Amino acid sequence: MSASDPVGNLQSLIRCPSVTPAEGGALSALEAMLKPLGFRVERMVASEPGMPDIENLYARLGTEGPHLMFAGHTDVVPPGDEAAWSHPPFAADIEAGEMFGRGAVDMKGGIACFVAAVARHVEKHGPPKGSISFLITGDEEGPAINGTEKLLAWAAGRGERWDACLVGEPTNPDLLGDMIKIGRRGSVSGKVTAFGVQGHAAYPHLADNPVRGLLPLAAALMDPPFDGGTPEFPASNLEVTSIDVGNPATNVIPAKAAFAFNIRFNDTWTADTVKAEIVRRLDEAAAAGALRPDRDPVRYEVLWAERPSHVFLTRNNGLIASLAAAVEEVTGRSPALSTTGGTSDARFIKDYCSVVEFGLVGQTMHMVDERVALADLETLTQIYGTFLSRWFDNALLS
Amino acid sequence: MSASDPVGNLQSLIRCPSVTPAEGGALSALEAMLKPLGFRVERMVASEPGMPDIENLYARLGTEGPHLMFAGHTDVVPPGDEAAWSHPPFAADIEAGEMFGRGAVDMKGGIACFVAAVARHVEKHGPPKGSISFLITGDEEGPAINGTEKLLAWAAGRGERWDACLVGEPTNPDLLGDMIKIGRRGSVSGKVTAFGVQGHAAYPHLADNPVRGLLPLAAALMDPPFDGGTPEFPASNLEVTSIDVGNPATNVIPAKAAFAFNIRFNDTWTADTVKAEIVRRLDEAAAAGALRPDRDPVRYEVLWAERPSHVFLTRNNGLIASLAAAVEEVTGRSPALSTTGGTSDARFIKDYCSVVEFGLVGQTMHMVDERVALADLETLTQIYGTFLSRWFDNALLS
Repeated sequence: MSASDPVGNLQSLIRCPSVTPAEGGALSALEAMLKPLGFRVERMVASEPGMPDIENLYARLGTEGPHLMFAGHTDVVPPGDEAAWSHPPFAADIEAGEMFGRGAVDMKGGIACFVAAVARHVEKHGPPKGSISFLITGDEEGPAINGTEKLLAWAAGRGERWDACLVGEPTNPDLLGDMIKIGRRGSVSGKVTAFGVQGHAAYPHLADNPVRGLLPLAAALMDPPFDGGTPEFPASNLEVTSIDVGNPATNVIPAKAAFAFNIRFNDTWTADTVKAEIVRRLDEAAAAGALRPDRDPVRYEVLWAERPSHVFLTRNNGLIASLAAAVEEVTGRSPALSTTGGTSDARFIKDYCSVVEFGLVGQTMHMVDERVALADLETLTQIYGTFLSRWFDNALLS
Repeated sequence: MSASDPVGNLQSLIRCPSVTPAEGGALSALEAMLKPLGFRVERMVASEPGMPDIENLYARLGTEGPHLMFAGHTDVVPPGDEAAWSHPPFAADIEAGEMFGRGAVDMKGGIACFVAAVARHVEKHGPPKGSISFLITGDEEGPAINGTEKLLAWAAGRGERWDACLVGEPTNPDLLGDMIKIGRRGSVSGKVTAFGVQGHAAYPHLADNPVRGLLPLAAALMDPPFDGGTPEFPASNLEVTSIDVGNPATNVIPAKAAFAFNIRFNDTWTADTVKAEIVRRLDEAAAAGALRPDRDPVRYEVLWAERPSHVFLTRNNGLIASLAAAVEEVTGRSPALSTTGGTSDARFIKDYCSVVEFGLVGQTMHMVDERVALADLETLTQIYGTFLSRWFDNALLS
């Protein structure tokens, strides 16, 4: 079997049950595809106290620039109720032109296609006029502590430098060719606690209901909007995702009350400035006072979740144009350049080089019966191949 | 042992472990005190599907009017951690002038004193110039479904009529003689749920965060105040006692969110009019819209807790004056006429006759080491005895 066949590549990968944090044989299967193509393959194990070790892989073909990185992950989310699948989640069964299996689109499929594209490129043109590398983690679906971030630092510490990166995550909402991601909003989470004095609901003057203080703080974060959006990004948006007082007694006033929030912010802000704006709104609402006749100031604290996700926007026109042109040439479809959606490992890569994201159609990701059309695997392989040629031509010209 | 000794009466009652719903021998002990005084004693068992049967007691001395009722309960709350008590909770140990035990002040102590007062009255004056009855339930600390309300209806159905009632609950905050309760606020509880559409926090346009709708509804109930109080009552007060979304995932927008509330309302309102005002505020806030730029109306529902507590105020000046004069004569203290505090079974009695409440000092009620000073038992017995004489004198005159 040749690595130029994305269907065979993907079957090999799906049959490795690599649910985070297990390697499951998936990186070894990838290594077996890459070595015959001339890649130097290294495995890097990342450790963190109290967490399982995670295996990662870095492979490079070529020694010179320009240097293009393909980034992704072989770990997958759990299959959930296996009995609910119409085919076993790690069997890679094919039925009616579709391959079923956990990771089919998120994102063993993207890896399988990029391997096939490189194999075809090497078969047709010989080694690239520069370098191609694979930066593949086993910790994207998990805490992402022992994954891309550490692998990048490890490789950079060994002198690796990259000119651009393509992340193979599923980016298309409906049809292959719909959407390229050129940036991602940042994400900051936190928890606000308002303090009061516990007491009996019949003696409110002896108590201080913290809900009277919490409500204006929560309202101040949800309204008005933080901004109206930017040319490349939708408006920043904060949601109070939970409020939990946990007081079962209707005749008791609780001692404290808390809400959790998450903001997805655009390039109007950095993680630091958006936190400062949140604190400003909380302080202003706290000073305006609780929902009581005396409008006493609200006593509160805000705790930030660890590791905010930073906002980024790729402005490398050569990279974006090469990818968009490849999509259009193969599919006839003009992809939207989008910054929507959640966070991805691209937020770590953008500190090293320009990064864009393009992969399969995401509709069945994380679901029972995750599956990919075989036709899409062939089309994506062609897009990646065309992109490879265009990107190297462009990089060598500039 | 004579029933004219409140200390002995109380020891007999405390030694019956009558934690709701258990009778524990307490009503039998009371019956054994009352029968020698000439009371006709009846036991009434109340039933409700799915609930334990509850024993109640009704006893009457005399056949004519005027007719004074003493009301109370022999059931007690659980002792909690018995090891934390300095004396066993059902031993009625006496140390340093205090008797320890569950129910010492709430409210076996009040019953023990009223029995002693009646015994002394009969010893001194012979049978009362009218009737005295005891209406004693075993379901005041529990759901109060099979207690005072049913016992009153049962007795009334047998032709019983009363001119006035004294409830022997602990009413004094600090010292015996501080406070007579002449009314109680009403209490209504409910739960408001706002509905939204679940989704990913990164795609808020595909979701509808119900917290954005819930906050203005909760705020509308807590502010502004419902009223400024009345001559006899403090201001009505609504507290949002809990908000519970229960969403553990910071990247998920929940489908619905709910809060619980409780209002203690004064005689500005009835249970029905205060509910109508709550609905008016919710509707107004819902129409003004959620905390979103589009201010879409809020979809919500309100569920009312069963059985609101109705507000009442006693305006029987003869009853109040007899009791206040007795307190002042025995203690030298002028009692406050109060309508503060939680609800009590007096809310049921007020539909049959005028009712006031006076008993022991409530400081240790429901606590570990609940206890009563022996001196207070003697003083309360004297107050009750003086009240008996004054009330009958007053009732026979008018």
